[in-house]
Amino acid sequence: MQHLYAVIMAGGAGKRFWPLSRRDTPKQFLPLGRGEGSLLARTAARLEGLVPADRVYVVTAEHLVDATRRELPDMPAENILAEPVGRNTAPCIGWAAATIRRRDPEAILAVLPADHEIENEPEFRAVLERAAQATQAGDLVTVGLSPTRPETGYGYIEMADEISPGVHAARRFVEKPTHARAERFLASGDFLWNGGIFLFQAAAILEAISESLPSLGAALAEFDAAAERGEEAALVAARYAELPSVSIDHGVMEKARRVLVVPADFGWSDLGSWVTAWEQAPKDDHQNAAPEGSVLLDAKGCYVRVAEGKRVALVGVEDLVVVDTPDALLIMPRARAQEVRQVVELLTERGEDQLV
Amino acid sequence: MQHLYAVIMAGGAGKRFWPLSRRDTPKQFLPLGRGEGSLLARTAARLEGLVPADRVYVVTAEHLVDATRRELPDMPAENILAEPVGRNTAPCIGWAAATIRRRDPEAILAVLPADHEIENEPEFRAVLERAAQATQAGDLVTVGLSPTRPETGYGYIEMADEISPGVHAARRFVEKPTHARAERFLASGDFLWNGGIFLFQAAAILEAISESLPSLGAALAEFDAAAERGEEAALVAARYAELPSVSIDHGVMEKARRVLVVPADFGWSDLGSWVTAWEQAPKDDHQNAAPEGSVLLDAKGCYVRVAEGKRVALVGVEDLVVVDTPDALLIMPRARAQEVRQVVELLTERGEDQLV
Repeated sequence: MQHLYAVIMAGGAGKRFWPLSRRDTPKQFLPLGRGEGSLLARTAARLEGLVPADRVYVVTAEHLVDATRRELPDMPAENILAEPVGRNTAPCIGWAAATIRRRDPEAILAVLPADHEIENEPEFRAVLERAAQATQAGDLVTVGLSPTRPETGYGYIEMADEISPGVHAARRFVEKPTHARAERFLASGDFLWNGGIFLFQAAAILEAISESLPSLGAALAEFDAAAERGEEAALVAARYAELPSVSIDHGVMEKARRVLVVPADFGWSDLGSWVTAWEQAPKDDHQNAAPEGSVLLDAKGCYVRVAEGKRVALVGVEDLVVVDTPDALLIMPRARAQEVRQVVELLTERGEDQLV
Repeated sequence: MQHLYAVIMAGGAGKRFWPLSRRDTPKQFLPLGRGEGSLLARTAARLEGLVPADRVYVVTAEHLVDATRRELPDMPAENILAEPVGRNTAPCIGWAAATIRRRDPEAILAVLPADHEIENEPEFRAVLERAAQATQAGDLVTVGLSPTRPETGYGYIEMADEISPGVHAARRFVEKPTHARAERFLASGDFLWNGGIFLFQAAAILEAISESLPSLGAALAEFDAAAERGEEAALVAARYAELPSVSIDHGVMEKARRVLVVPADFGWSDLGSWVTAWEQAPKDDHQNAAPEGSVLLDAKGCYVRVAEGKRVALVGVEDLVVVDTPDALLIMPRARAQEVRQVVELLTERGEDQLV
């Protein structure tokens, strides 16, 4: 599709996959989920046939640029945008939109998180194409994922009328709901998960930013002006930290006049924690996901991740997450996987920088 | 004490401490328990002041001779007896007794396992000295350990009359009892644990062996004859595998006419499993024994052993044993620590020799 560009957001910190993920190798650089290669490399590869390689951009953190280049060796250097500091998604998307609009004033952006798992890739591309078509009138479009459980960890999007085949008006965005509310959402059939996948014309999102977040809009205009003088890098370095730290959902989409939603069902997972990694992994008859050759005596429901060639023996344990790296070993029940953040925070407080 | 020799039995396979223990580094070579250095080195060091270094012997397996030399660098080479195959304790002790009697016909032997922990070493030496004195009339003497719990994993020795201060006649040996029986033993005050520590004149045990295990006695006499011709090594290599595989307890002591027992209370532990290692180790307020710096969030009763410098994080787990080495990781509840043998057996069956 002409003028279609992809913006992969790859700046995440990835504490939830410690000790495999670290500050310098967050989740998107890890080979998680079912496929081969890192999530980031697979996110880029998934676009083949839909977006030409030179129209794929990545926004990441400065300290992750080298790792990003290693994962995406064929990506033009200028397609990697390095944020001096993370300021949530509105500045990230705004900066990418401004950058790409300078190249192509008619650009349409598909904004994609770098760290999700997609099972049905042809369907994924078909959905993106439909959503991209729906941006033509200047609308902001979001992809809404068919919910499969009353998840309280995601935001939801309520669908209104179908305005063209497979494209609905979005009635409203709803923040993470209570469990009871999530159950009602699931039962109604009108609510979809917000997975952070957005499509819009670069010009349209920049206009919406200027309306809803005028200080960000002004800064982006300054970036444009500096770019004309060849001085954008210095300005970004000087000013990025001052940009408002706000999400595109909350700061722009929720306030926009018309937002569309394309319902999708392509086997999506956000790989949000080691539990999701366990859910996605191939398992034995006792629900263990462990490397081949592991010695599992009366072990059930365990997720084991160790370096290649290391042998693990589990005897009589259930529902554990075990992640081993050369310098750190994590063991916890699956039900408490969220608490790995506290481990990382504790190590950070202790100043054990080499471990986080 | 004149004529006192020590025989340290150090041929154990040490499956129970896998993955730290391996075929080539069984338990006695590991720094387990409270002290510094390997159990074997500490067993030898514990004899200082009681037995001169050149009268300390070690019986071990051929493939462990180099490791033994490394642990005991000052021991004369001829004091290390290498069994071509393990044939339980009767051949091991008989061979050591024959070897030492050739050097000193009046030798008294203190036979000691290489892999036990002793807290009160002066008391230990005092007990050995008393037991050695009790061998003077040709009696076989065993050290009986004051039981502290109704342990079903040990053999017991029933005491009869005290025949001299601190020395009793032994009424009988009892194999591992049921729990109810062990409780009666503990309550009676007449039963002691058999920890495998024996003292006797070399000549006396060889005579008892000839009576109870005549085929072993005959083989040892052949070893003596071959030694006179300087041909013992070849005969041992050729014949050792044919010796009867039987314990000194069952094969000799239980059948001997008079056995004495010296009750002892010097803080003994056989370090029989990772559970004993946990029991012996310093613990935090939540009964965790883990390396300094470990991140323990709501973890209780865990034993953690990892390579120096590796960080462990436990979140919300209880009563686990976690042992990590560069090539293998074991996780199991403390209550199932005995099952580590099955892990080793499974790996052996699979032919994973590098791991066992």
